[in-house]
Amino acid sequence: MKIYRQETSRSLYERAKKVIPGCPFCPEGGMYGHYSTSVSARGNPVYFSTSRGSRFVDVDGNEYIDYMCAYGPMILGYNHPAVDQAAREQYLKGNTVSLASPVMVELAELLVEMVSIADWAFFSKNGADPTNLSVMAARAATGRKKIVAIEGGYHGTTPWMQDAGSGGTLEEERSSVIRIPWNDPGRLQSVIDENPDDIAGFISSPYHHPVIFDNELPEDGFWQKVEAICRKNGIVLIVDDVRAGFRADLSGSSTYFGFKPDLICFGKALGNGYPISALVGTDAMRDAVNHVFYTGTQFFNAAPMAVAVATLTELKNINGPASMLESGKKLTDGLVRIAQSHGYDLKVSGLPSMPYLRIANEAVPPVFTEGFSGLHKGLHADWISECVQRGAYFLDYHNHFISTAHSEADLQRTWDIADDAFAAVKRIYGDRF
Amino acid sequence: MKIYRQETSRSLYERAKKVIPGCPFCPEGGMYGHYSTSVSARGNPVYFSTSRGSRFVDVDGNEYIDYMCAYGPMILGYNHPAVDQAAREQYLKGNTVSLASPVMVELAELLVEMVSIADWAFFSKNGADPTNLSVMAARAATGRKKIVAIEGGYHGTTPWMQDAGSGGTLEEERSSVIRIPWNDPGRLQSVIDENPDDIAGFISSPYHHPVIFDNELPEDGFWQKVEAICRKNGIVLIVDDVRAGFRADLSGSSTYFGFKPDLICFGKALGNGYPISALVGTDAMRDAVNHVFYTGTQFFNAAPMAVAVATLTELKNINGPASMLESGKKLTDGLVRIAQSHGYDLKVSGLPSMPYLRIANEAVPPVFTEGFSGLHKGLHADWISECVQRGAYFLDYHNHFISTAHSEADLQRTWDIADDAFAAVKRIYGDRF
Repeated sequence: MKIYRQETSRSLYERAKKVIPGCPFCPEGGMYGHYSTSVSARGNPVYFSTSRGSRFVDVDGNEYIDYMCAYGPMILGYNHPAVDQAAREQYLKGNTVSLASPVMVELAELLVEMVSIADWAFFSKNGADPTNLSVMAARAATGRKKIVAIEGGYHGTTPWMQDAGSGGTLEEERSSVIRIPWNDPGRLQSVIDENPDDIAGFISSPYHHPVIFDNELPEDGFWQKVEAICRKNGIVLIVDDVRAGFRADLSGSSTYFGFKPDLICFGKALGNGYPISALVGTDAMRDAVNHVFYTGTQFFNAAPMAVAVATLTELKNINGPASMLESGKKLTDGLVRIAQSHGYDLKVSGLPSMPYLRIANEAVPPVFTEGFSGLHKGLHADWISECVQRGAYFLDYHNHFISTAHSEADLQRTWDIADDAFAAVKRIYGDRF
Repeated sequence: MKIYRQETSRSLYERAKKVIPGCPFCPEGGMYGHYSTSVSARGNPVYFSTSRGSRFVDVDGNEYIDYMCAYGPMILGYNHPAVDQAAREQYLKGNTVSLASPVMVELAELLVEMVSIADWAFFSKNGADPTNLSVMAARAATGRKKIVAIEGGYHGTTPWMQDAGSGGTLEEERSSVIRIPWNDPGRLQSVIDENPDDIAGFISSPYHHPVIFDNELPEDGFWQKVEAICRKNGIVLIVDDVRAGFRADLSGSSTYFGFKPDLICFGKALGNGYPISALVGTDAMRDAVNHVFYTGTQFFNAAPMAVAVATLTELKNINGPASMLESGKKLTDGLVRIAQSHGYDLKVSGLPSMPYLRIANEAVPPVFTEGFSGLHKGLHADWISECVQRGAYFLDYHNHFISTAHSEADLQRTWDIADDAFAAVKRIYGDRF
């Protein structure tokens, strides 16, 4: 099987280092944020050239079946015809104008119709926009200060949301956020008891999808208990569905898990790659939002709103979430079987349409002991790297994403690649695992 | 002169109220943020239908010469051919993919070449992204906490930046921000003396362009004194050029005003309506940024980067800033003369390419005494409203924006409209002013 080389990517990246800064994951510069982690992975391409359907081509001409889907936004396939047509038509009319477009009303009506708890929708750009606004709305609604969040939960990089303590954040900025473990409603109750009448809101993704660690679905009854506790104590229940949204249920991942939050944050897949995010909520939260001033220059861009209408409509027409859940299950069942045939135990966790993978023969991945400098090292990371170099674009520390564009042929090709990649790591590690 | 009517806008807005929340400026809902203030203005359209060049058409078919330019992003005209072609070509390749595009490097190199202080560039979406990151970088660079900002200065709606105290923000979130008056370097020195070794950064727009109040250019020597004070005390000097950027000088508004900051925040006009913002900075700040984790799903969108290259290139080719400064001067000189001919004193403030207007016969606009409920009331507001209803899109409390698409014919038509609008308010107010 051909092994990809990335000379063009790497020489372009050398140029980038001169004019683009880095971040804690990439102190040598040239790339920052979540995109920087792929730069440091062995044999990973850095720049794309073209993209179509489930695949992209890097600047060296190598084609990859993409299981990162731009970290979530791509849900119907790159350059999807219905999406691109909706965008083109709106761009011809106008995108960012001194007034909003009628499509803003159309999209809000569609979300209200589609999302079970939604009585209204507020549009923005970054995923951190709805999470920021949701916390402000919870405080405005309750007159309380503190927010309960999950340990290792990610809601963007605004300082209050930063867990790991990035440079430049203040302790005071995190002082009103209380972190509790996932799947522990008892702990939520204790925190409420310890902070009587001071908890404004509870924010969490619909299931636990941290980086580096196995993902965890809610235990039976978890969300129902959380919902009951929040109701009883007048706490605003916020679901950060930015990452998982529309890959479990078009009515919100909370519908999939059988509970009703007060606010849901959407982003990523909502615009199939065009930048748009949204906060939706219940009637009871409307007045609180009316008291918050939150805005951005680009919040009213019309083309991404037209695209979101087209994306949601297409997802509904083809029953997108069911199809992605099924494809993801099929893909990972196949990968697990192939792993077994090589003597490896591939552990799959999280939602089937957003599978997190880990070869469990390596009980303690280097990143657990070495911290971020251990990223991309060890058996699992090497298998991922061997897959990438053969054309299946995975990432070693992050959940993956399935789109409706991933075909039977894509899965078959991925299995072949995985098989060859397992053989390659077997040659490196022999019987060590 | 025909007076516009907006039945379609208003009936669509009634639908919007049901499914879109409001904000403190628009508690009845249906529109939020900076776009909501135009909703409450008498005779103002709410939704656009199409846009082209310097003009947009509302959903009732009325055409307006647009002096708000989408609150800044539109700088070369709506649907500019070179911009739209750059976007189309990049969209065909791919926009939001699991890897960055080579155009990210190209745009960073262009900004480094064009902006005097820039040794690197970091790209993001909202204007608040670079202002947030700049403050984090200042703290990371200095190990200090406090940020000095200008009273009434606006740097986005993240809680720490909120001045007026929107609902849902905490006092603690503003506790590390010290506000001082504009044009007062002595006050900056006092604050430093009162907080020895605790000031991380000073953030300000290149000139003072608040809403509601007359805009103020820097007094002679202001920025040079500020720069010297910051250098002497190891304080990071941050220019928030999100609003004014590329309308004074392509090298940064700091070049226009003759000083050198450490960091400059760009946004709005950078993408001529496609969403992109940027933080640029000096080599000395690179390491601090490398220590900050700041990211967003959409930060790596390739099409807005390709558009930014096209926008900056076109602005350079046609010497955009000089042309906008000249058009703005010509427009407002004409408006002042026409005002005089009706016995009105139209006061123009700020940068000529971003003129703030106020009829000074009304010494105390209602908004000064009544707060936000006084918006859109009084002589000046009525004149603006009469202009809008005749096809010149102004706003009564905000600076305006000139683009390179505003033609001689646009100015002439605007003068005719202004003349008719002055006659109309004269009929309302008679000799009261």
